[in-house]
Amino acid sequence: MENTFEDLGFAKLDMSRQKRTGANETIYCPGKTTEQLIEILKTFHNNKCSVLGTRCSEEKFLAAKQANIPVTFDAVSKIIKLINTAPGPLPGKIAVCTGGTADLPVAEEAAQTAEFFGAEVERYFDVGIAGIHRLFAKLDNIRSADIVIAVAGMEGALGSVITGLVDSPVIAVPTSVGYGASFNGIAPLLTMLNSCAEGMSVVNIDNGFGAGMLACRMLRRIGKTHD
Amino acid sequence: MENTFEDLGFAKLDMSRQKRTGANETIYCPGKTTEQLIEILKTFHNNKCSVLGTRCSEEKFLAAKQANIPVTFDAVSKIIKLINTAPGPLPGKIAVCTGGTADLPVAEEAAQTAEFFGAEVERYFDVGIAGIHRLFAKLDNIRSADIVIAVAGMEGALGSVITGLVDSPVIAVPTSVGYGASFNGIAPLLTMLNSCAEGMSVVNIDNGFGAGMLACRMLRRIGKTHD
Amino acid sequence: MENTFEDLGFAKLDMSRQKRTGANETIYCPGKTTEQLIEILKTFHNNKCSVLGTRCSEEKFLAAKQANIPVTFDAVSKIIKLINTAPGPLPGKIAVCTGGTADLPVAEEAAQTAEFFGAEVERYFDVGIAGIHRLFAKLDNIRSADIVIAVAGMEGALGSVITGLVDSPVIAVPTSVGYGASFNGIAPLLTMLNSCAEGMSVVNIDNGFGAGMLACRMLRRIGKTHD
Amino acid sequence: MENTFEDLGFAKLDMSRQKRTGANETIYCPGKTTEQLIEILKTFHNNKCSVLGTRCSEEKFLAAKQANIPVTFDAVSKIIKLINTAPGPLPGKIAVCTGGTADLPVAEEAAQTAEFFGAEVERYFDVGIAGIHRLFAKLDNIRSADIVIAVAGMEGALGSVITGLVDSPVIAVPTSVGYGASFNGIAPLLTMLNSCAEGMSVVNIDNGFGAGMLACRMLRRIGKTHD
Amino acid sequence: MENTFEDLGFAKLDMSRQKRTGANETIYCPGKTTEQLIEILKTFHNNKCSVLGTRCSEEKFLAAKQANIPVTFDAVSKIIKLINTAPGPLPGKIAVCTGGTADLPVAEEAAQTAEFFGAEVERYFDVGIAGIHRLFAKLDNIRSADIVIAVAGMEGALGSVITGLVDSPVIAVPTSVGYGASFNGIAPLLTMLNSCAEGMSVVNIDNGFGAGMLACRMLRRIGKTHD
Amino acid sequence: MENTFEDLGFAKLDMSRQKRTGANETIYCPGKTTEQLIEILKTFHNNKCSVLGTRCSEEKFLAAKQANIPVTFDAVSKIIKLINTAPGPLPGKIAVCTGGTADLPVAEEAAQTAEFFGAEVERYFDVGIAGIHRLFAKLDNIRSADIVIAVAGMEGALGSVITGLVDSPVIAVPTSVGYGASFNGIAPLLTMLNSCAEGMSVVNIDNGFGAGMLACRMLRRIGKTHD
Amino acid sequence: MENTFEDLGFAKLDMSRQKRTGANETIYCPGKTTEQLIEILKTFHNNKCSVLGTRCSEEKFLAAKQANIPVTFDAVSKIIKLINTAPGPLPGKIAVCTGGTADLPVAEEAAQTAEFFGAEVERYFDVGIAGIHRLFAKLDNIRSADIVIAVAGMEGALGSVITGLVDSPVIAVPTSVGYGASFNGIAPLLTMLNSCAEGMSVVNIDNGFGAGMLACRMLRRIGKTHD
Amino acid sequence: MENTFEDLGFAKLDMSRQKRTGANETIYCPGKTTEQLIEILKTFHNNKCSVLGTRCSEEKFLAAKQANIPVTFDAVSKIIKLINTAPGPLPGKIAVCTGGTADLPVAEEAAQTAEFFGAEVERYFDVGIAGIHRLFAKLDNIRSADIVIAVAGMEGALGSVITGLVDSPVIAVPTSVGYGASFNGIAPLLTMLNSCAEGMSVVNIDNGFGAGMLACRMLRRIGKTHD
Repeated sequence: MENTFEDLGFAKLDMSRQKRTGANETIYCPGKTTEQLIEILKTFHNNKCSVLGTRCSEEKFLAAKQANIPVTFDAVSKIIKLINTAPGPLPGKIAVCTGGTADLPVAEEAAQTAEFFGAEVERYFDVGIAGIHRLFAKLDNIRSADIVIAVAGMEGALGSVITGLVDSPVIAVPTSVGYGASFNGIAPLLTMLNSCAEGMSVVNIDNGFGAGMLACRMLRRIGKTHD
Repeated sequence: MENTFEDLGFAKLDMSRQKRTGANETIYCPGKTTEQLIEILKTFHNNKCSVLGTRCSEEKFLAAKQANIPVTFDAVSKIIKLINTAPGPLPGKIAVCTGGTADLPVAEEAAQTAEFFGAEVERYFDVGIAGIHRLFAKLDNIRSADIVIAVAGMEGALGSVITGLVDSPVIAVPTSVGYGASFNGIAPLLTMLNSCAEGMSVVNIDNGFGAGMLACRMLRRIGKTHD
Repeated sequence: MENTFEDLGFAKLDMSRQKRTGANETIYCPGKTTEQLIEILKTFHNNKCSVLGTRCSEEKFLAAKQANIPVTFDAVSKIIKLINTAPGPLPGKIAVCTGGTADLPVAEEAAQTAEFFGAEVERYFDVGIAGIHRLFAKLDNIRSADIVIAVAGMEGALGSVITGLVDSPVIAVPTSVGYGASFNGIAPLLTMLNSCAEGMSVVNIDNGFGAGMLACRMLRRIGKTHD
Repeated sequence: MENTFEDLGFAKLDMSRQKRTGANETIYCPGKTTEQLIEILKTFHNNKCSVLGTRCSEEKFLAAKQANIPVTFDAVSKIIKLINTAPGPLPGKIAVCTGGTADLPVAEEAAQTAEFFGAEVERYFDVGIAGIHRLFAKLDNIRSADIVIAVAGMEGALGSVITGLVDSPVIAVPTSVGYGASFNGIAPLLTMLNSCAEGMSVVNIDNGFGAGMLACRMLRRIGKTHD
Repeated sequence: MENTFEDLGFAKLDMSRQKRTGANETIYCPGKTTEQLIEILKTFHNNKCSVLGTRCSEEKFLAAKQANIPVTFDAVSKIIKLINTAPGPLPGKIAVCTGGTADLPVAEEAAQTAEFFGAEVERYFDVGIAGIHRLFAKLDNIRSADIVIAVAGMEGALGSVITGLVDSPVIAVPTSVGYGASFNGIAPLLTMLNSCAEGMSVVNIDNGFGAGMLACRMLRRIGKTHD
Repeated sequence: MENTFEDLGFAKLDMSRQKRTGANETIYCPGKTTEQLIEILKTFHNNKCSVLGTRCSEEKFLAAKQANIPVTFDAVSKIIKLINTAPGPLPGKIAVCTGGTADLPVAEEAAQTAEFFGAEVERYFDVGIAGIHRLFAKLDNIRSADIVIAVAGMEGALGSVITGLVDSPVIAVPTSVGYGASFNGIAPLLTMLNSCAEGMSVVNIDNGFGAGMLACRMLRRIGKTHD
Repeated sequence: MENTFEDLGFAKLDMSRQKRTGANETIYCPGKTTEQLIEILKTFHNNKCSVLGTRCSEEKFLAAKQANIPVTFDAVSKIIKLINTAPGPLPGKIAVCTGGTADLPVAEEAAQTAEFFGAEVERYFDVGIAGIHRLFAKLDNIRSADIVIAVAGMEGALGSVITGLVDSPVIAVPTSVGYGASFNGIAPLLTMLNSCAEGMSVVNIDNGFGAGMLACRMLRRIGKTHD
Repeated sequence: MENTFEDLGFAKLDMSRQKRTGANETIYCPGKTTEQLIEILKTFHNNKCSVLGTRCSEEKFLAAKQANIPVTFDAVSKIIKLINTAPGPLPGKIAVCTGGTADLPVAEEAAQTAEFFGAEVERYFDVGIAGIHRLFAKLDNIRSADIVIAVAGMEGALGSVITGLVDSPVIAVPTSVGYGASFNGIAPLLTMLNSCAEGMSVVNIDNGFGAGMLACRMLRRIGKTHD
């Protein structure tokens, strides 16, 4: 396995990540100056690579556009995208569910990340357990997905309930939605880690991106022939 | 309101608590020596009072019996009781539910405390959300109760789910059942505090006793005439 | 039990909650965009439903008004209300007490929530334990309530003291009032969870809304006939 | 979907879980008395079901055997098994890796759980990052697995390193191995949740069982045809 | 100020502490071997010094006695004492109060430490706020003390209540009495640190010894003439 | 003891606190609206009382002045004062020490609170342990004080070092000065609670006010005659 | 050892620190007013001393320049410098590595601090473990350094990996880069404290300054002759 | 760099660690069975390697001896050693200091680890800050060391005080000595991380071993010639 990178000094862009891990490098925008971000985007553009950046501010996006990089931006998920070649489609289907409306930004980060890498995504928003019949009304659809991403804040019980009702793997994403003893997402994080429903795992608080990336890894395995 | 107490030096037994708060004093057994516990029980017995003690060891119970105090003991809930006059019955009904089998000791502490003070209790054990149809099978019964006590460890989502399905007040009791990131009950405690279902409140981890006491206060208010 | 909801895509409004849980759905405003909030309010208004929203900003309220929805707003509690049919009165009476003046916003959230659902509320503010005679001066009034909501920050001992002095159920609400080792309300939360006074339970930090909702559930049970 | 359960009073055995979630119910042994465990095992045995129990003590295993239930026990993983019909094989392959030797019990819990449900498992133990060449020596084998389970205590960096080197999904299991500021597994748990390597998710501390269950759900999806 | 110490290698006994800080060195017994403790006690005895040791096990005490050191031991407070010259009496009076009976060991550590250094101590045990009339019954006595030590576990509100009722300085000692969300004394510690009653300070959890030492420093200042 | 208060509805001003606790009521300004603060100040002014308010913003001070209340304000300590009759002088002397320059606001809150109630205060700033000779240069002065207030952030070791060198009681005040693992003052708080130097106690993080109040209680006891 | 300081009242500048600890005093700018900072800088300038200040705002720097103090400022590291005599060069070489681009400010604080005191520094940025080949590409250079400073946020595993690959001492600096369960740097802090790689130690979160200072102390020892 | 290991299945012994990191592999004994430990020791013995194991129980040591492996054991530090070839001496000198007597086991782990790898160690025990003259009495000796290891529990201020007084690098080791709010060593850990004295770094709680290993890495660099 030959590994290469582009060395910008302040950053070393991993150009062999796709070969190694199935998906090319992505950009975590916070903590990078606008100048650094633009230089990184340009490097990918010059290499005719597509790239996705998360938690991008609108200011940085506008500056990148001003610098003539053909990026697009989604205000809900704060995702910035540079697309040079559309990613080939992945087999299977992902269901992204949320407990409430306030979980949307994280859910969209998950959904759009997965879509960027070629996955088919269905959205089921505001199906939390305070009115569990809303979840049951969508259950057949959710059960038909190959992977479920369950996004929830506050008490974060959505993942457990779904895991007990479907047979596909569930990725739970705790969100920082809530107040007081939610402790910015610790409460749903602990809920999800302690689930008595088997077949679920957890990513970092508000990490829709990570859930989308993991779901894509799972989809890539689907349809593979084993002898 | 005249308030009195029996002063044993190491303890001052509150003999006016019943008049003041509706229920007479109870005994928290840990941290009291066997000698102290016996002296306390004798004082209540000499005053022809009933009294309930929580978290009692079998050793202390046997010593009290040896000292000719007519106490009884329940090995599951660790409750010791001295009954001199049966408490008058309370109106209404309490449903005590648990997420799993391991929550039984806490659930029994709640149930038996409430029964000691005259309440009618129905038990619905192991109806946790990993197999939510078990809860639905009992839902009509649970809905008929005036108060629901929901006892759960691990992710502790039982209370939220029930609160979304019934119209009576719900008292949630987190238990220390679990391991790892349950942090001895912090996980279900936080889950319950952050519930998006409205109409639930929480007591201390493993505090079945407190839930039972509170439920009795609620029952005492039922049937009261208001002009 | 027939359960229905209005599906707005980003939100699924639970139209059967009242039948199921005794109170219709409410709105947690944070994390919803102004556009989403307006669409939700309009849906309720078109269905001739009353609805209450918590933690609403003044900006969102003004935008809703601008959109010709007949909402009202309380600047202390940050509650937004849409009233189409006045809720029928509930039996009994709630006493809302605070430790200090800074606890008022949370106390008003509790009081106004309960009043929205038809409860009678009496307010006893700034009766904290640093000058306990202020509490004793009001004790007879507080004792006459069917439920006490005790709102306190800092050390949060108000709930325990009251619970030891009355015979009605007490709902304790920790507030984030304080600094340093109050840790934004963890200190009073722990105080309340560990109360040695029996007959009290706790809701989330600053969750006046939840306390008001629970109190209403309790009141609904009062006056019920049991055979 | 028809859901059924066997009601033992203290437990309600979920007999429809396999149909619903792909794997039949399992037993969490702690907090259950020996008598309860035996009754549960007997019920499964009478129904000709296989069942797996975790965190079983040797005492409970011996008592079950004494009661003529044909169970087997593994002293490293503390797994008790009752096998009536061998589970059909799952497609694909799981690699279970550990950072050190002390992580073996958790790794074996993961491996044996997966094997119980029909998965093929390969073990790569003690390949932690203090001597990273040990990991590189096994990398080609690990890369050929469809799912990697990375079990590590102390700083728990194994999962991140592997995720950066393979293209299959990685399930990270933090263990309580360590001392001091490992805080019984919080350190590796946080490490894993904060991984900058994309394609990994996390289960509870020491939860080898959960990792194994999730891996099986993933394998079940492999080989499925999508049209 | 000439400072000296006896160097035993594993310990350097501070022989000038009394001159410097008003009280001679004391011994924290945990973590010292029996042999080390005996050698330390012998050194003090040979220098005709009195010395007090805290948290001593009965085994270590018996070994010291066996070694012919004229020590005495109190089983409640776990204090070991070697008295060669009785300390001169201190002016004023200390009131030691506890919330409950289980706080006695800590309260006795405080009281006996203060008595060892010549203070007069009065004990008021089990005057916690669940039955606040017990405290009021003793209030005149407590108000007459120059310093109050308030020892309490669980919610730990005793100190605040007393501080609001007396005019002398109050030293609050949180204890590890309680369970669940008391977190081994964190709950009362936070309560005490956040007291809205002014005139109180706090020592470590279960640190009766420290409270007693501080009270003695305060007493030493009383009666001093200032020009 | 006759206890009275002025009832403003949102606040109940304790007018008997001085008789009861030695110092009249003070005002915690955060969480009070400007209107509430002005009404409180006016009530005290009309009763010809002096009063001290902490954590006051400059805006609130200017509004109070605008309202013709003769208040003064100190920008470092954020203390607002209304003085009608100068408090009688207290016996003895307080030394206020800080570890660094950034601890000044908290130290001044302590010093000015004590001075408001009639105490003599000496200031020793920036004598932290990184250059311990600075502390030794001032040690004789510090030793002559009746009480030492040790204010320190970061590692907060100043209190322990001083306690080991003087014979007067020491009140330690942790500050939120620092970053990272100081966790807004938790680090120095824990340091101070765990001091192996005997004769020190601790108040809340940044609570200079509380330290000043407690010091005054101690001073009031000095010079009292005991028979 | 003669120790001296300049007493400015609010600060006591340690003029003997260099003789005592090898490096002269430095300034922690937060919590100091602009006036205090200028007075401190002037005092050093008048004494012809060089001095370095950390976490300086641009405003304070500009004010100091306005006051005619010949300071320089670095916007990335927020370091302000006053150089009167260039420090003599130190033997050896320091390698400063970062996991990502967002760690640069902390890394620069470390590097520039070390350079201020005369050290030679080499920078290796963005060599984190998600693309570990980037680290291997630089490994020979890093191995040639006498000390490695490993700066990383998120999971913070960089230090462990490097420590396992080099033979020089490693100083790990956790950064607050990340979100959610990174808890502002707690996650990498714990990772680094729990490293199973031997030969590494840790400084405070974001404390590049401390790492640079420690590295200089190490370098000063290199080349020393021992007999 | 050629890297090799011995593969025992449950363990992969790193035989190239010495070449890579300067010190050969060591054994963390907890979590390894006696059988595994013996097999590991035998493998090192057969390879004529010396090896050091930490946190070894006496039982495991005796079993290893029984198995004819020529190991030695130190009961204070719990270190087990197998010595085949004495390590060459390292240049320079290490001073190991402790705050109290109870810190000895951790201090000895540090000292004996360093001695095992050829370092010269001097011990200065019980020089904590409660009697700071004991530290000053030894200061000249401590200043002559090339590296200081400061071991302390409780408030853990020893490291800061020493760092302010010497010019060599200081490695601070927090210990779990203490109780209550020491939280098993969190208090001294935070103290040390927040030190305002520059030139110190920290290892894990009770990690004397890590401090000794790091000190040896530093010593190896001393005396190296740089051109």
